[in-house]
Amino acid sequence: MLRVHKYGGTSVGDLERIENVAARVAKAKETGDDIVVVVSAMSGETNKLVGYAEHFTSNPAKKEMDMLLSSGERVTAALLSIALQSKGFDAVAMTGRQAGIVTDSSHTYARIESIDPSAMQAAIKEGKVVVVAGFQGTNKDGSVTTLGRGGSDLSAVALAGALDADQCEIYSDVDGIYTTDPRIEPKAKKLDTISYDEMLELSSLGAKVLQNRSVELAKKLGVKLYAKSSFSDNKGTLITEESGNMEEVLVSGVVLDKNQARVTLRGVSDRPGIAAEIFTMLANENINVDMIIQNKSTDGLTNLGFTVPQSEHENAKKVVAEFDHDIQGMDFDQHVCKVSIVGVGMKSHSGVAAQAFTVMAEEAINIQMISTSEIKVSMVIDESQGEQAIRALHAAYNLDK
Amino acid sequence: MLRVHKYGGTSVGDLERIENVAARVAKAKETGDDIVVVVSAMSGETNKLVGYAEHFTSNPAKKEMDMLLSSGERVTAALLSIALQSKGFDAVAMTGRQAGIVTDSSHTYARIESIDPSAMQAAIKEGKVVVVAGFQGTNKDGSVTTLGRGGSDLSAVALAGALDADQCEIYSDVDGIYTTDPRIEPKAKKLDTISYDEMLELSSLGAKVLQNRSVELAKKLGVKLYAKSSFSDNKGTLITEESGNMEEVLVSGVVLDKNQARVTLRGVSDRPGIAAEIFTMLANENINVDMIIQNKSTDGLTNLGFTVPQSEHENAKKVVAEFDHDIQGMDFDQHVCKVSIVGVGMKSHSGVAAQAFTVMAEEAINIQMISTSEIKVSMVIDESQGEQAIRALHAAYNLDK
Repeated sequence: MLRVHKYGGTSVGDLERIENVAARVAKAKETGDDIVVVVSAMSGETNKLVGYAEHFTSNPAKKEMDMLLSSGERVTAALLSIALQSKGFDAVAMTGRQAGIVTDSSHTYARIESIDPSAMQAAIKEGKVVVVAGFQGTNKDGSVTTLGRGGSDLSAVALAGALDADQCEIYSDVDGIYTTDPRIEPKAKKLDTISYDEMLELSSLGAKVLQNRSVELAKKLGVKLYAKSSFSDNKGTLITEESGNMEEVLVSGVVLDKNQARVTLRGVSDRPGIAAEIFTMLANENINVDMIIQNKSTDGLTNLGFTVPQSEHENAKKVVAEFDHDIQGMDFDQHVCKVSIVGVGMKSHSGVAAQAFTVMAEEAINIQMISTSEIKVSMVIDESQGEQAIRALHAAYNLDK
Repeated sequence: MLRVHKYGGTSVGDLERIENVAARVAKAKETGDDIVVVVSAMSGETNKLVGYAEHFTSNPAKKEMDMLLSSGERVTAALLSIALQSKGFDAVAMTGRQAGIVTDSSHTYARIESIDPSAMQAAIKEGKVVVVAGFQGTNKDGSVTTLGRGGSDLSAVALAGALDADQCEIYSDVDGIYTTDPRIEPKAKKLDTISYDEMLELSSLGAKVLQNRSVELAKKLGVKLYAKSSFSDNKGTLITEESGNMEEVLVSGVVLDKNQARVTLRGVSDRPGIAAEIFTMLANENINVDMIIQNKSTDGLTNLGFTVPQSEHENAKKVVAEFDHDIQGMDFDQHVCKVSIVGVGMKSHSGVAAQAFTVMAEEAINIQMISTSEIKVSMVIDESQGEQAIRALHAAYNLDK
């Protein structure tokens, strides 16, 4: 079996932890499996280097930042390879370039264009553990590029795809995907399995274990992903294709996103294209709009609501103020949050959303906005009731069972 | 004019010093010259990384060490490029590979095989300052290699040669080559000019400003070298071809090397090849032999003397003890030092060595061993009289004038 392991910054945060990772990789190798390891920079290292650059300018050139930041992963890869060798394992460290990763030229946020796995394959054939510096590649000119924050996950998934690996194991300091945040609901249960689509909804809703780009790529390439802890031997969560079995589960998880502010525009004039104008202007100001709700009211006018991250609330206010003459009234609320329930089972079961609204009513929680997708129901409610809502929904869908 | 600047670890030791280097490079660029800058790792960085590797094993793989250690220079190159950009200068950072440096595969002590300067030349043509990570290249397989300690000097000289640069300026924390160590003789004078050969003798004798490999390469490629300080605007020392003018100066400098231990073998049997056997065995034990003196004595037997670094004295003792039956007596002395006078003028002037011996006699210093080359006279004397000898020789050859 060919397995790709990926260890994040916390897992390789100091020399003892690198030693621990080496022991884990050694154990996996001893089972007879072939192992490719992708590593991040030691935790704190990337921020230190960013701080160095910002000593000189708040806007350093992206090409130079890529050369600067890519050094951290190289250090970890070399050290892990040395640690494995010191345990008697044949290991070889590779940069992104040496591993065959070619990207476009969008420095600091490059996209992987192709991977030539032949160097890795040759090393694997020789029985070597291949240790790859994550987060990086080179463009066609041979300049170093990086893949953006969380890019090491992306490296791991892309390499697993190119190598046709049997699985890609993402190690961090949490041991899998939970039905909800255990800090809010101690009864939260770790999931054995979750679908790519559910994971995508969960991570876009604020569960930070895996970045969306990596999950999207895993889905596209059909890479079986495991989220595991590098500090325990717990089983972790498998992220994979939907199966019939999965659909028996109505809801996989409930998520709270506190970083929300609500904007509601009442009585928007029916001039065609006004919504487009407002959202174009918000986009031009780099304001990330999350939920959008539009309702025709009985008098032919429209009510338009949307949410933005709290930090962008003031900017959003300024933008909509320019549409003053087109709108009867505006309403802003920074003290809201979003609770969401996610599950592929919703596709084939009706009544999931209705049950959520019933729970909210029983808890005397007023729902300000609702948005649904095929596998998700999101509700904007008062910030002070967010955790209460999560606990109630967690219980209602039997997630603690 | 095309100038290559090289800044060592102390010169780029922290962010303020990198800022200082950026200001110096900017000033040079503003005169209209084209500038290529080669940088070392920030001081302490390489030792830190070596320490990391040694956490795992005392004998880390050299290929991995090269990936590890080459990261330090990349960080400095990226930061200096960012610092120059923040001052409004167009700059581009390049790794050794991007600068076109191809080496052999002797990891941690690679030799430069070829340089393709086209990427640098294209950037220079666009008016850019090119900032190159020193100490590194890639081999034909694309693996990162490093050039050994002091390798950034070598990078600078090699790039200057490949670019046909007008001069190569090596910046450090000393402002040139002195007639002797100013800590021993405060009257020591900085030299305006010195020949490659004199510099080679001086650096092999313990003057640490420039490494021999770099001076040898500069001589081979005809690169005009300047040794300068990055902390002052002093003129520095030009290291170049011998000129008629130089030869008027009998002696350019006097040097003390305290890291010497003497071994003398008396009455070595005249069995052919015995000296070869002894020195082969010393070489096999990685003992660096410095001076070697052999004299036939009147009885047909031979006296053989040599010096080794003090740290290798005990090992040398063990080696020669194995030749016990071939030798009448042995004499070891750890408390010796070597004083040397260097000058191209010796080639065309007789009496330089005789004058040195006279000075020693006047100072009542017993000379234990003598070795001479075309431009050098070295004498092994008692360690306690080393500094006295340096001061007396410095005065005798009018080096303070």
